[in-house]
Amino acid sequence: MNIMDKLANRAKIVGPVCVGLDTKLEFIPKCISETNGTAGEHIFEFNKRIVDATKDTACCYKLQIACYEALGLDGLRAFSDTLKYIRSNGLIAISDIKRGDISSTAAQYAKGHFCGDFETDIITVNGYMGVDAISPYAPYFEKGKGMFALVKTSNPSSVDLQDTLESDGRPVYMHMAELVSKWGSSYTENRGLSAIGAVVGLTYPDEFIKIKAVMPNTFFLIPGYGAQGGTGKDLARIFGDGICGVVNSSRGIIGAHKGKTEGDDFVSYIACAAAAMREDIMKWL
Amino acid sequence: MNIMDKLANRAKIVGPVCVGLDTKLEFIPKCISETNGTAGEHIFEFNKRIVDATKDTACCYKLQIACYEALGLDGLRAFSDTLKYIRSNGLIAISDIKRGDISSTAAQYAKGHFCGDFETDIITVNGYMGVDAISPYAPYFEKGKGMFALVKTSNPSSVDLQDTLESDGRPVYMHMAELVSKWGSSYTENRGLSAIGAVVGLTYPDEFIKIKAVMPNTFFLIPGYGAQGGTGKDLARIFGDGICGVVNSSRGIIGAHKGKTEGDDFVSYIACAAAAMREDIMKWL
Repeated sequence: MNIMDKLANRAKIVGPVCVGLDTKLEFIPKCISETNGTAGEHIFEFNKRIVDATKDTACCYKLQIACYEALGLDGLRAFSDTLKYIRSNGLIAISDIKRGDISSTAAQYAKGHFCGDFETDIITVNGYMGVDAISPYAPYFEKGKGMFALVKTSNPSSVDLQDTLESDGRPVYMHMAELVSKWGSSYTENRGLSAIGAVVGLTYPDEFIKIKAVMPNTFFLIPGYGAQGGTGKDLARIFGDGICGVVNSSRGIIGAHKGKTEGDDFVSYIACAAAAMREDIMKWL
Repeated sequence: MNIMDKLANRAKIVGPVCVGLDTKLEFIPKCISETNGTAGEHIFEFNKRIVDATKDTACCYKLQIACYEALGLDGLRAFSDTLKYIRSNGLIAISDIKRGDISSTAAQYAKGHFCGDFETDIITVNGYMGVDAISPYAPYFEKGKGMFALVKTSNPSSVDLQDTLESDGRPVYMHMAELVSKWGSSYTENRGLSAIGAVVGLTYPDEFIKIKAVMPNTFFLIPGYGAQGGTGKDLARIFGDGICGVVNSSRGIIGAHKGKTEGDDFVSYIACAAAAMREDIMKWL
């Protein structure tokens, strides 16, 4: 069973909520930020308490590395510590790094994110540079690692390039969907899911249905729920024949206490937000 | 004068050689690797000696961050130290990070790479997600920062997506070229170059000529020289009316001593390789 099969099984049991640890300093309540320690240490403490409070509700955790890179080495230490904490609790971590480069460089990224300080379970990648940017990660798939490749992203300007029409009238994101499906076809076990999944935003549900049709063995990472506009009802259409992906929310969960408390009870707001999101999704299934 | 004007001016004076500090442990000679210190400290020492030996030949230095991420926090400390060393010598640093994400995330990357531990002069970005992935960097352009956006990359599988034909017969990389040129058009000073440049590989010289025609105020980062197959003769066509970009070589320069010496004279091989590359390019101009 590869990592995507594991993730899909867990999503069936606990629901598909992916808690986005896009942790910015503005989210940290005073009960943590006013203690001794660096910004990175505060971020790790905040993340740790969130993991403790949501581990039965969350299917997995996604860390947006940019929020940690923004704080330099101190931030990246928090990134490393958070990944270790999630994984040592037997939970699944996704590093949202969206790397994409030539094969010799991709091999370095694979080493950096599937081993060592930043070891994670699944990364996100950008396939603009083609299969060279994808294949160097494959040797790690049999060691329990996986990836989500960008297909159709959730942001407004995703149309700029991704919706460019090809000569046969198909948009570029459909071309990317077929490429990713082809690249992933070798990495399934026992007719399960491919170790290469896809990122498709919830903000474009009609497009999602078309993409899903050409990616039969693919599990999805679905951003765009909540703050970005996607709803449980949109998901109901996409999950018509069962849960086919994990649904990420960040601000909507890890910022749920903002304006309400600066004390240690902040985690209860966050736990409630995660549970409410799960409920909003599961009621349609 | 923005950073691209500065880079172009320096390229006219010293030539367009960009030394690629894609430093892997296998490049480090024993005179460094057998001293006390971490892998990251060895990498920094190696890079520092290369900068000292090439600073009159090199137009700029490009650091492939993947080689540093591969070594975790220790590697990223070397990344930070190398950037500081280059910039404190008044030289121009390019961080080859190829980041690309939604606007709130891109703002975090901007903070991470234009300020703090990883402060650099120019970054590379991936525009697959559209202008949202580009515009958050703009506030830094007037502070002397810039970016190179991927258009047509040098690797064999760049054709997978970038050469997809649009309905009017144009390939996707031409669409990206026009998008990047449009995005960059607001960021010029006194009819100079845009602070948004473009990455176009030397391995596709015919395509380069077509791209250049639709990107009039754009300076280029040109990978693919040497180990990847591009030659000075290919550049001569592209530089027909003057130097329009910097030409990166990594292995061909920083690995020039491999198999020849493990001693402190390694830098002389590296300095010679950089000088020979400059000569190979300048003789055609």
